[in-house]
Amino acid sequence: MSETFCDQLRKRSLSEPYAGLLGIEVAEVGEGSARVRMRVRPELANIFGATHGGALFSLIDEAFQLACNAHGILSVALNVSITYVAPPKGAALLEATAHEMYRTRRTSSYVCEIRDPESGKLVATAQALAYRTGKEIDLSEGS
Amino acid sequence: MSETFCDQLRKRSLSEPYAGLLGIEVAEVGEGSARVRMRVRPELANIFGATHGGALFSLIDEAFQLACNAHGILSVALNVSITYVAPPKGAALLEATAHEMYRTRRTSSYVCEIRDPESGKLVATAQALAYRTGKEIDLSEGS
Amino acid sequence: MSETFCDQLRKRSLSEPYAGLLGIEVAEVGEGSARVRMRVRPELANIFGATHGGALFSLIDEAFQLACNAHGILSVALNVSITYVAPPKGAALLEATAHEMYRTRRTSSYVCEIRDPESGKLVATAQALAYRTGKEIDLSEGS
Amino acid sequence: MSETFCDQLRKRSLSEPYAGLLGIEVAEVGEGSARVRMRVRPELANIFGATHGGALFSLIDEAFQLACNAHGILSVALNVSITYVAPPKGAALLEATAHEMYRTRRTSSYVCEIRDPESGKLVATAQALAYRTGKEIDLSEGS
Repeated sequence: MSETFCDQLRKRSLSEPYAGLLGIEVAEVGEGSARVRMRVRPELANIFGATHGGALFSLIDEAFQLACNAHGILSVALNVSITYVAPPKGAALLEATAHEMYRTRRTSSYVCEIRDPESGKLVATAQALAYRTGKEIDLSEGS
Repeated sequence: MSETFCDQLRKRSLSEPYAGLLGIEVAEVGEGSARVRMRVRPELANIFGATHGGALFSLIDEAFQLACNAHGILSVALNVSITYVAPPKGAALLEATAHEMYRTRRTSSYVCEIRDPESGKLVATAQALAYRTGKEIDLSEGS
Repeated sequence: MSETFCDQLRKRSLSEPYAGLLGIEVAEVGEGSARVRMRVRPELANIFGATHGGALFSLIDEAFQLACNAHGILSVALNVSITYVAPPKGAALLEATAHEMYRTRRTSSYVCEIRDPESGKLVATAQALAYRTGKEIDLSEGS
Repeated sequence: MSETFCDQLRKRSLSEPYAGLLGIEVAEVGEGSARVRMRVRPELANIFGATHGGALFSLIDEAFQLACNAHGILSVALNVSITYVAPPKGAALLEATAHEMYRTRRTSSYVCEIRDPESGKLVATAQALAYRTGKEIDLSEGS
């Protein structure tokens, strides 16, 4: 039975070094969408003991990266605008999603958000713009 | 001899968990400005082997966090818009700076960038907006 | 029969000087949402004959202004990030909408877009952040 | 004596319909930079009597449009993130500037701001990203 490109991309993400460093897990990759998770932990804290804005952004960026590359065309981030809504609770298992708003030959754009699925509370929202290089992605082994 | 608040903030950053996780070092904190560094390393790579957008953002966010809190009033990120210019070279020691553009009672804004100081090349730029809570920061021990 | 605050706000918009200058009509104001329209016309053209980016932004900003003030608390724009998707067709009657993503005591955020309702095509998207001053809006005559 | 492309672009802007509608004058166009002006007037007012956010954005967008096209390659706005700092005074002659931060083959980015030159006060700042189409601009008559 053949595997879809989205399945391959999700598998590849399991060995992504940065996702491993931050403890990000990929839950789902669809064409133009993705859902990822990260547990709030002490090593993600900033100087005031709150979750670092860079950690929250990274979770959104992981979802964005997968969503925009899920069409099989290599896409790179051009601009991301993140708005922080409310700090997450300690030990929360945060979930970030990215959904495609449009896609042209050269660019595509995504609306992203982080929620605490337990409480339903919104933590951050983002608008992300990708440049589509036109190059096909090759996920075959060794590449 | 008395230590300035900026010195205290820089010292506090030495024990920040997230900066430790990513390998971010704080070079300088001034009133409304900061300069930080991070070495490009394999553990910061995304699924395509390039430096993850979240790692680059985190470096900028660290500079922003220090710059906006350097006045002694607790400030939190409201919005950051990052534009990616060019991927950094492997093993480059990246430097991010944040500079205050304005500061009112309730908000302040910063222009930030990442460069590879060796080549002078621009890697990313950002515009960052902080909400100033009005609360004084207490960096005394145990807090 | 009593008029809602949203009705009052929509009425007030009929005499807004800037909306009059650009030819913006307000179709709908709800609590945290709004829908407005503008006809593409030669006087909105930029130096290349396309609709000026400022005109498109203004349409979105009108929807945002109404949506964020519809709760009766004076709110001012802090940051808006607009992404241009595709130029509108000549003489199209564009429609912009703003929808509230969240609202706290001090800030609220909106996802906005412009479409050509005839073709359904997306023209621009935006993410807009408002600062809520806490002051009640008084729309009584003469104010 | 030959005229530079920047001079031609500035001349062309004199007959731009949208700049005429809003009362925007172009003061200067350089390679990758521009300076434009607009007088605060009653017809630019929003429903609360303050200068409309769309009018302020339009002033910045005019500077951006000129700066990114001044290299002679047709460039279109991809994303603009504007931060509003403080409302301008009534009847102020506002000045907006755009300065190029970088330029690659496909994109270029600008830092923009509006000031009241009389008081020196900052009104708004923006970060603007252009897509460079690669097509040469032809400003010969009739085009």
